[in-house]
Amino acid sequence: MSYQEQVIEWYKSLQNTICAGLEKADGLAKFQEDNWSRPEGGGGRSRVIQDGNVFEKGGVNFSAVHGVLPDSIKKALGVSKSEFFAAGVSIVLHPKNPWVPIIHMNTRFFEIEGETWWFGGGIDLTPIYINDQETKGFHSELKSTCDQFDAEYFPKFKEWADNYFFIKHRNETRGVGGIFYDRLNDRDWNELFDYNKAIGDTFLKAYLPIVNANADKPFNEEHKNWQLIRRGRYVEFNLVYDKGTKFGLETNGRIESILMSLPTHVSWPYNFQPKENSQEQQTLEKLKKGIDWV
Amino acid sequence: MSYQEQVIEWYKSLQNTICAGLEKADGLAKFQEDNWSRPEGGGGRSRVIQDGNVFEKGGVNFSAVHGVLPDSIKKALGVSKSEFFAAGVSIVLHPKNPWVPIIHMNTRFFEIEGETWWFGGGIDLTPIYINDQETKGFHSELKSTCDQFDAEYFPKFKEWADNYFFIKHRNETRGVGGIFYDRLNDRDWNELFDYNKAIGDTFLKAYLPIVNANADKPFNEEHKNWQLIRRGRYVEFNLVYDKGTKFGLETNGRIESILMSLPTHVSWPYNFQPKENSQEQQTLEKLKKGIDWV
Repeated sequence: MSYQEQVIEWYKSLQNTICAGLEKADGLAKFQEDNWSRPEGGGGRSRVIQDGNVFEKGGVNFSAVHGVLPDSIKKALGVSKSEFFAAGVSIVLHPKNPWVPIIHMNTRFFEIEGETWWFGGGIDLTPIYINDQETKGFHSELKSTCDQFDAEYFPKFKEWADNYFFIKHRNETRGVGGIFYDRLNDRDWNELFDYNKAIGDTFLKAYLPIVNANADKPFNEEHKNWQLIRRGRYVEFNLVYDKGTKFGLETNGRIESILMSLPTHVSWPYNFQPKENSQEQQTLEKLKKGIDWV
Repeated sequence: MSYQEQVIEWYKSLQNTICAGLEKADGLAKFQEDNWSRPEGGGGRSRVIQDGNVFEKGGVNFSAVHGVLPDSIKKALGVSKSEFFAAGVSIVLHPKNPWVPIIHMNTRFFEIEGETWWFGGGIDLTPIYINDQETKGFHSELKSTCDQFDAEYFPKFKEWADNYFFIKHRNETRGVGGIFYDRLNDRDWNELFDYNKAIGDTFLKAYLPIVNANADKPFNEEHKNWQLIRRGRYVEFNLVYDKGTKFGLETNGRIESILMSLPTHVSWPYNFQPKENSQEQQTLEKLKKGIDWV
């Protein structure tokens, strides 16, 4: 099988596994599937869950597209040929309960046949209220997977996530980070494919324990309000900075699949300031780069 | 008085007049004022209204900033000197009632002393449900002001607004448009200053009749839901495309003043499709460029 056939097969099976795990955790809602194709080439299988016990809105999207890169992206990528192939799985989940963090994963393969290929991806966690112990557990899972391949991966990709998931205009990280990597082609294709698969398999292991521990915790209006505000920051990051979103919008991807990352309910009250020593303020103080959670 | 002193004085008085008119229309909420200064030079007087009878959230912001342009913006503007001055008033109002349209106005003066200056601005209306008659009245007010200066202004600036307030990834205009112009320096400074003042004075005349006609109209949950979705489109436009927002974020403006344009409550349900022949669908069909409302 070609690289492209292999990644397509794997990404589809990853989508199946993750959707099954999330439906089980939710216990109520089922993923709704929308297949789409892109006039310029390729398409995807979007799966969105809404109004569940646990998840207010979330998507686990597979796509495999090909076509001609817009000049702006070609220039940004520094490639000379225009015919590209890109496939991957993108996940964003917005839980109902403010004690359950938002999660994001992206895992992708990009190829310009005859010129170059690379893997990219990342998993990062955005708690509404940061729980140090859970954050440590989350980072430890990612580290343990990375360490099986290269001891330098985790520190490098953790720092990359801190820098990537950063809301410059707020001077805040989006959440507690995780890992982020791009243009990974520093070793044999099969080895990097295995690494990418291992990261994909880490998703449920790293996230479900946090979901299960918090999904039934009681919360009040103040907690909910803070969640809506933090979701606003999430929207700001995705629409202003996120490269995947930009790539999707500029290459005429399916809009509702790309923007499944935006939560159902969001709020931007003017100039909200958390109270001194509140849990909200304690969370804000930890939305910084360079915290060693492990 | 220098150009800069004259525009500052005028913009402050315009802010006063408009805030007074809007408070009267609201009948309950008062503008909260926040003065801010920018480490790099200048500052502003932000005024935000929230939780009123009519307005859920809105801002009427004056700012006058100066400093050194980031290279990216210098390049985009095609100027050679870096020391800039920019002043203006920015308005966005998000009404509570879905029958009252969102409105936006921006009026600004930009100068690079010793090199160039220009005026820019625009007013555009974003109804949740498009009312043809009101839209016609709104466009007519703008046309009548423009026509006092140049018969070519309105058609040119109306087309510019159609193109500017366009959400490319949705293939929808943001609302029913209005006027938009930038880098206006095709005639004497005083004449263009007068034009800019006349547009500023048109704001309340064009908007308040629509507010007063609709603020007490009954609405149901379906109307409210559609409003939250349309507000989502507004956020998409402002964070993905709006040049003023981008300029503010990149030049280290006061974030809560820049993002006062984002509504308190917003919603992104997955893949919402209006029913056939519904009022929602009728509105969507009119979110197109090139409609001659006058």
